[in-house]
Amino acid sequence: MDIKNKYVTIKTNINGAPKESNFEIKVENVSFIIESESKDVVVKNLFVSIDPYQINRMKSQSSSQGTISFATAITPGESIDSYGVGRVLFSHRPDFKKGDLVAGLLTWGEYSIVKEGSLLNKLDPIMGFPLSYHVGVLGFSGLTAYGGFFEVCKPKPGEKVFVSAASGSIGHLVGQYAKLLGCYVVGSAGSQEKENFLKERLGFDDAFNYKQETDLKSALKRCFPQGIDVYFDNVGGRMLEAAVANMNSFGRVAVCGVISEYTNATTRAAPEMLDIIYKRITIKGFLAADLMNVYAEFLSKTVEYLKSGKLKTIEDVSQGVESIPSAFIGLFNGENIGKKIVKVADE
Amino acid sequence: MDIKNKYVTIKTNINGAPKESNFEIKVENVSFIIESESKDVVVKNLFVSIDPYQINRMKSQSSSQGTISFATAITPGESIDSYGVGRVLFSHRPDFKKGDLVAGLLTWGEYSIVKEGSLLNKLDPIMGFPLSYHVGVLGFSGLTAYGGFFEVCKPKPGEKVFVSAASGSIGHLVGQYAKLLGCYVVGSAGSQEKENFLKERLGFDDAFNYKQETDLKSALKRCFPQGIDVYFDNVGGRMLEAAVANMNSFGRVAVCGVISEYTNATTRAAPEMLDIIYKRITIKGFLAADLMNVYAEFLSKTVEYLKSGKLKTIEDVSQGVESIPSAFIGLFNGENIGKKIVKVADE
Repeated sequence: MDIKNKYVTIKTNINGAPKESNFEIKVENVSFIIESESKDVVVKNLFVSIDPYQINRMKSQSSSQGTISFATAITPGESIDSYGVGRVLFSHRPDFKKGDLVAGLLTWGEYSIVKEGSLLNKLDPIMGFPLSYHVGVLGFSGLTAYGGFFEVCKPKPGEKVFVSAASGSIGHLVGQYAKLLGCYVVGSAGSQEKENFLKERLGFDDAFNYKQETDLKSALKRCFPQGIDVYFDNVGGRMLEAAVANMNSFGRVAVCGVISEYTNATTRAAPEMLDIIYKRITIKGFLAADLMNVYAEFLSKTVEYLKSGKLKTIEDVSQGVESIPSAFIGLFNGENIGKKIVKVADE
Repeated sequence: MDIKNKYVTIKTNINGAPKESNFEIKVENVSFIIESESKDVVVKNLFVSIDPYQINRMKSQSSSQGTISFATAITPGESIDSYGVGRVLFSHRPDFKKGDLVAGLLTWGEYSIVKEGSLLNKLDPIMGFPLSYHVGVLGFSGLTAYGGFFEVCKPKPGEKVFVSAASGSIGHLVGQYAKLLGCYVVGSAGSQEKENFLKERLGFDDAFNYKQETDLKSALKRCFPQGIDVYFDNVGGRMLEAAVANMNSFGRVAVCGVISEYTNATTRAAPEMLDIIYKRITIKGFLAADLMNVYAEFLSKTVEYLKSGKLKTIEDVSQGVESIPSAFIGLFNGENIGKKIVKVADE
């Protein structure tokens, strides 16, 4: 069986902000002679997820942040794996049949060959949501938001919650989960449009455009006259320092992402450790992969919230494999509102 | 009743490293006309604790670290409260009688007037330990070490534990508790003498003199070829950064003190947040006052370990109220080994 697979790769490692010239669209003729004992599943990709953390996998291991050997490196020239949704094109495995809808670790390309042991699950189509939801709000972005907020932050109703990159794929969900719990929620974002979106569309109690603030500490003091109990950190850097300075006793910081530090290792946060001691603050890094214990709860709650209209999800969808590099680069320029997804093919 | 009370005070707020000229010994004639309904307890101080954290209370609130309003400020000219052991000289309260041994919040002086509601407990003399132990290993230093290690770090036998300022009042106990649990323990300290002391006297698996290391990251890599699971942080700054870089997945940092930052706000730690995320590291500040739930357990275990010789405590005792300023200043020059205590009077 022959297919022509168009996919995205990096030309070399990327150690700063990503640029179009770092990427390449390759077309490869792939011949499958899948033997009957093969466990490979060939998937036609439909939607793929575009996430900032991928940049950490594109860095050279000798970079100043090269200790991040925990993130599996992406090899220049090879395909880039990414969460996504697709349809089985070929499989000898009894658990995956041709035509099955699946979600799992696919690639930034038209087709994926998913090896045994790699993340792949059949998708339940009875839910009746757009397929793209399974890449975002019902996929890893949703789980990260739900589990990161409820499991890592251990929030209580009435607590004061701050979310940075609040209009992003995870932030816009965290803020809504926090509102649904009965928290006071403030988000930061990088434009007036996003600020309005958070307050008017998503029901945040307050929001601010960090680019308009000369002093983040004062901005947070203004938004949180009673202090911050929970900070869901997507950006790191100066914002983390300002949040710690405004935190209440026994405050919790869930470190989900540090986008301000991904492409610039010199913006590292130096929070005031005296605050951390005297206010008994906990700062905790986490990965969605560790939150599978709440997956079932996350899914049932989130489906319920979506169906009742209590939770809104916003998607920013580009079309075609060719749009992947610019979609990815746009994440670091704050171009997207909500979850960034590329639609690779029609269903 | 008249007493002449000699006590230590600060002349003005202190915003850098403390110097002799910042302190003053005052002598005051105090007349007590304690009415029968007074709840004040007058205590003759015997031993007082000398702790680095007090410097944070001496700073002016307008300093760059002035957000630390959580630590009750020490007012220039007034007496300085501190944990200590003494004997009741005068009391109308039925729970404290003249001659009773007590431990609690006394002052850096010859006498303390302890108000109702302030920390004061009768000391059980049947334990048979030197009275000074109740200021250190059986007092707040011990509780901080025990609770900070077991409750905050949640260590398991076999885990790799790093302790900074390991020859200090708290560090030298943490390392021994960790050894008693069955951990691999490495300490850092500021001299060859202290390094030897940790390895030869206290049974640490390894130790290093941080002043002899050009690269703390490499030093920790050498001492922890399998990585660090638990870091008990007494110093902050570059050491915290190096520890985070060498940490294993799900590593825990208990932030007990940041002595490198107390007198120099420019040495703030900027740990690599990518490490914190990918390795799911938890950084947690704590205060001994929050650990009272393990007080009984701490005391019974520690008494047992001391009696059986499994735990050694080291004290560095100066004599007389006049020695308090230099004893305190010495903490920031690394002069003490073990718990720094001033003996104010004979029993």
